[in-house]
Amino acid sequence: MKNVSNLLADLAPLGPDELFATILERPGVRIERIVSHGQTTPADAPYEQAGDEWVLLVQGAARLWLDGAGERALAPGDHLLIPAGCRHRVTWTSPGEPTIWLAVHFDA
Amino acid sequence: MKNVSNLLADLAPLGPDELFATILERPGVRIERIVSHGQTTPADAPYEQAGDEWVLLVQGAARLWLDGAGERALAPGDHLLIPAGCRHRVTWTSPGEPTIWLAVHFDA
Repeated sequence: MKNVSNLLADLAPLGPDELFATILERPGVRIERIVSHGQTTPADAPYEQAGDEWVLLVQGAARLWLDGAGERALAPGDHLLIPAGCRHRVTWTSPGEPTIWLAVHFDA
Repeated sequence: MKNVSNLLADLAPLGPDELFATILERPGVRIERIVSHGQTTPADAPYEQAGDEWVLLVQGAARLWLDGAGERALAPGDHLLIPAGCRHRVTWTSPGEPTIWLAVHFDA
């Protein structure tokens, strides 16, 4: 079975930027792995997407802020829907270990 | 932020059957959590779906067989695409701990 990959592997080399990798794309949807290691979203440049995004924190630790919903800490297993058009920012990710996210992006 | 759930929580009560729960549905796609605790797919009743299915082993341990690709052990973080129409079976899941899967089902 040659088509098995591991979401927690192949992290290196970790440079200054977060790693974004598309795992699978189908019409209207894209599954992505994101690896953070201390990065945050600039306060003056929140994310805002035209479509819904579902995110799962797989490993590590982070804090996420959503416009209108506030900020909270995320632990492994935590998942939520970031609705289309909702401004959001990653306000903290663990500097001491890779934080691994799974994101499922839906077209608007 | 009230819309955060945890994939590793709310497992109980574990009965004789696997737990299937839809996390999110959008046109053409459904995200599902599956919790196994020792169950396997009967040898005479493999799964076979009309659409693609992407699966991620989040926690625990399992063995998966795919028609034409053989059988292999899956560890946390392992993920693969089960193509539409490919017969497959879960041949083993850990009896000693919950095995948690994330499945993304795509319409045919």
